[in-house]
Amino acid sequence: MRTNSLGRQIPYAGERPLYNGEFALVPDARKAAPRIRSAVPGQHKVVHGIEEAVKAAGVRSGMTLSFHHHLREGDLVLNQVVDACARLGITDLTIAATSIFGVHAPLCEHIRQGVVTGIEANYITGPVGDAISGALLARPAVLRTHGGRVRAIEAGDLHIDVAFMAAPSADAAGNMNGIHGPSACGSLGYAVADANYADCVVAVTDNLVPYPLCAVTIPQSLVDIVAVVDKIGDPQGIVAGSIRVTRHPMGLLLAQNVARVVEALDMLKPGLSLQTGAGGASLASASFLARRMKQENIQGSFGLGGISSFFVSMLEEGLFTTLFDTQDFDAEAIRSLGQNPLHQETDCGTYANPHNSGAIVNYLDVVVLGATEIDTAMNVNVTTASDGRIIGGSGGHSDAAAGAKLTIVVTTSTRARLPVVRPEVTTVSTPGESIDVVVTERGIAPNPRRPGLMHKLEAAGLPAKHIEQICREVLDACGRPESLRKTDKVVALNEYRDGSVIDVVRQVN
Amino acid sequence: MRTNSLGRQIPYAGERPLYNGEFALVPDARKAAPRIRSAVPGQHKVVHGIEEAVKAAGVRSGMTLSFHHHLREGDLVLNQVVDACARLGITDLTIAATSIFGVHAPLCEHIRQGVVTGIEANYITGPVGDAISGALLARPAVLRTHGGRVRAIEAGDLHIDVAFMAAPSADAAGNMNGIHGPSACGSLGYAVADANYADCVVAVTDNLVPYPLCAVTIPQSLVDIVAVVDKIGDPQGIVAGSIRVTRHPMGLLLAQNVARVVEALDMLKPGLSLQTGAGGASLASASFLARRMKQENIQGSFGLGGISSFFVSMLEEGLFTTLFDTQDFDAEAIRSLGQNPLHQETDCGTYANPHNSGAIVNYLDVVVLGATEIDTAMNVNVTTASDGRIIGGSGGHSDAAAGAKLTIVVTTSTRARLPVVRPEVTTVSTPGESIDVVVTERGIAPNPRRPGLMHKLEAAGLPAKHIEQICREVLDACGRPESLRKTDKVVALNEYRDGSVIDVVRQVN
Repeated sequence: MRTNSLGRQIPYAGERPLYNGEFALVPDARKAAPRIRSAVPGQHKVVHGIEEAVKAAGVRSGMTLSFHHHLREGDLVLNQVVDACARLGITDLTIAATSIFGVHAPLCEHIRQGVVTGIEANYITGPVGDAISGALLARPAVLRTHGGRVRAIEAGDLHIDVAFMAAPSADAAGNMNGIHGPSACGSLGYAVADANYADCVVAVTDNLVPYPLCAVTIPQSLVDIVAVVDKIGDPQGIVAGSIRVTRHPMGLLLAQNVARVVEALDMLKPGLSLQTGAGGASLASASFLARRMKQENIQGSFGLGGISSFFVSMLEEGLFTTLFDTQDFDAEAIRSLGQNPLHQETDCGTYANPHNSGAIVNYLDVVVLGATEIDTAMNVNVTTASDGRIIGGSGGHSDAAAGAKLTIVVTTSTRARLPVVRPEVTTVSTPGESIDVVVTERGIAPNPRRPGLMHKLEAAGLPAKHIEQICREVLDACGRPESLRKTDKVVALNEYRDGSVIDVVRQVN
Repeated sequence: MRTNSLGRQIPYAGERPLYNGEFALVPDARKAAPRIRSAVPGQHKVVHGIEEAVKAAGVRSGMTLSFHHHLREGDLVLNQVVDACARLGITDLTIAATSIFGVHAPLCEHIRQGVVTGIEANYITGPVGDAISGALLARPAVLRTHGGRVRAIEAGDLHIDVAFMAAPSADAAGNMNGIHGPSACGSLGYAVADANYADCVVAVTDNLVPYPLCAVTIPQSLVDIVAVVDKIGDPQGIVAGSIRVTRHPMGLLLAQNVARVVEALDMLKPGLSLQTGAGGASLASASFLARRMKQENIQGSFGLGGISSFFVSMLEEGLFTTLFDTQDFDAEAIRSLGQNPLHQETDCGTYANPHNSGAIVNYLDVVVLGATEIDTAMNVNVTTASDGRIIGGSGGHSDAAAGAKLTIVVTTSTRARLPVVRPEVTTVSTPGESIDVVVTERGIAPNPRRPGLMHKLEAAGLPAKHIEQICREVLDACGRPESLRKTDKVVALNEYRDGSVIDVVRQVN
């Protein structure tokens, strides 16, 4: 049993290093070496149906198949591919999806049958999270951050045998984009690394257009097979489960205080760049910031991350000069990406990979994020519920938190009578050293590691309070959370963005 | 001494295979592995002046430095960098430029002084070509095609230590584009592979814009250093030496016949895609084709390659649905790339690399190319003058010729009383098997390897003639060309796009 710098006990980490600080791990290596292909004029790439694609791609037992999550709860590709593999008698697959949603519940049965024995993802919600938490999966799942997944692919830690890419539009040569077609999803930013590194890349499309496609996001030079299917996505689901600005009075109060914190810490100024999490209060805080920017006639620089209609409005109102878009949350964002040249599609590595020449998160002024739990060391859990079940994952949380000049977590201090602010989080997703301020209804707590913040918050008339004090109040109100009844069995490794193990998830009883 | 499948004697080829057919060489390997970097928030990349950049990049004697040629005869970056290296006492450099122009004449002195001992390029014109031909360079130069250079980089045959990239616009994080700024050049398509594979990437800019740049062609995640200088380019030179439609009656006649050949061979039909070389008659043929397309109400699909105002007009008139742009030849093309979403910037690998999952040239219907010489086996020389001096190189010639369904070479049969059509070319740039038809003022010759073409040309009333017959007429008029007085010393290897040696260039006496 080893212990990392956050004091988390790591019984199993494979060959991975343990977390030792946000930027402690400096790589000295070369990238993985993708397979060289060749092609001749007249070579055909189009196959019909998923089963043909699985055969053409040479999928065999033991392989790692990758998927992007841009179709979110509307994704019909992952299930179709794994179903086809099962029918063909293929077993022992690792599913390396950028995220796994409720729609992917059929994976549970494939896990039980041994068709799927490994899962690597940046975010897992729904029945698959329960299945992993219940130790159904043969090997521990690997949870990563959005940037960390690109890092892992580039470093060769995550080798992809075949990437199956939902392609809202594609031509017969494999050029793809996400902006046109009945299953339009906008940015394909999470698929770019897979396209660059997989041994075989399959575009799966329900919208085969005449050659050549325009505009091209992922070019034909990276695509080996084009699989034409009836339907890759359910448009309702593509924008379902996505974000909505809170209308709850408490949420609005918190959001307003987030904006006040930004101002109190002298960040409300020309050139402001901003990312918000997908939570209602996070997003609402952008609304209050936008209002203040307009009042003060401040033009920001860029909006980053998953893009919703709200950021599109800010761009169109001139509050941002550009958007860097890695994924789209609603139809308005998809439309804007296809039409507005200031709205730029960005690959996930450029967005958030810590091991390149400088990701965009490093240039971010303010990020507003949510939390399932946050402890007195400011460690944040967005991976597991307080009962230990996997209900999410870092996604871009740790990436943006590490990169931004000011990282604000906004959350109520309790949720459904359970303490959110607590002595210790169930699982560390994002290390406390990345967090600057947490905004709760009981008070606004600066990170104790940041001397001077408390004073600035107080000077601005904000209800500043020590995190320890908030925690005590919460425990007084809710009682101390019971220790979880967990087994020793590790069901998931929680990889920090640099590839080190920041925590593990154990089987829940 | 070995002999390749074209009968060319290759006294020296290093470890390279010899040319054995357009698509004979099928790679079975993995790509080169670029260096993994890392960056932290607040890390600065900006340096001032070239000398600081050379130092910051850690340039040492023996290294390979790369450059793109998008500033063409207006490029001020390559000379500044090599001058700075010379001042710093750095020697034994290999210059891996996509192309070398007359403006790079100062390289000759650096070659004499041993600062530069190797040159690898796709096209070399001017004094540097003379210097190489005169055996001034310590090691044989390596001439490649545009697609072949990307292949060589990806395969690890061409390892770039430091890429110095002229960046008409850049921000402090290294995001670059070519469409804005006083030295705007349009597409940066030739620089993309260097950005992906060099151990160190330096953006050299005279137009540092506030972060973040929009639109981004080469992203910050690939860029290590941003060097701010007074001037990277001379706008006159950027569009100088570029193409102009011929007005010469003979050129117009040839161009008209090219259009008639396209029609006679049933290629003038909806979805027509087209590339033309930079020669006046090649370009004029596009004009005649455009006229016929309008008359017949035919909409083509894409225009490819180096883009000029002429292709922009065809796009705007609806004759093309999109342009794939790897470089821009005039101000109108640069403007269009920045404004028209149907005008797409394309990286050179996607354009022409034979060793990926399928380059755009493979989807090309018609390419019209020039020739310095063409022989009775249809081999084309665009590399050396008939006196053996290096005056050019394949560039995209071999790439497009191998990919297109119909490859037409257009040239007068003699030039300045020297035979262009001749028994044997001085240097093979593009193999005869890639050529379908040669159009000359003495007649139109199909490749004897293509049975049926002669009949089709005749049926269309075109002046079809055997290439051997044209050659005899030329020799009757000009006399048989004297054998060149060459030494045995190899001054340049001519690499075919797949990495095999298609010919060598020997020292001229």
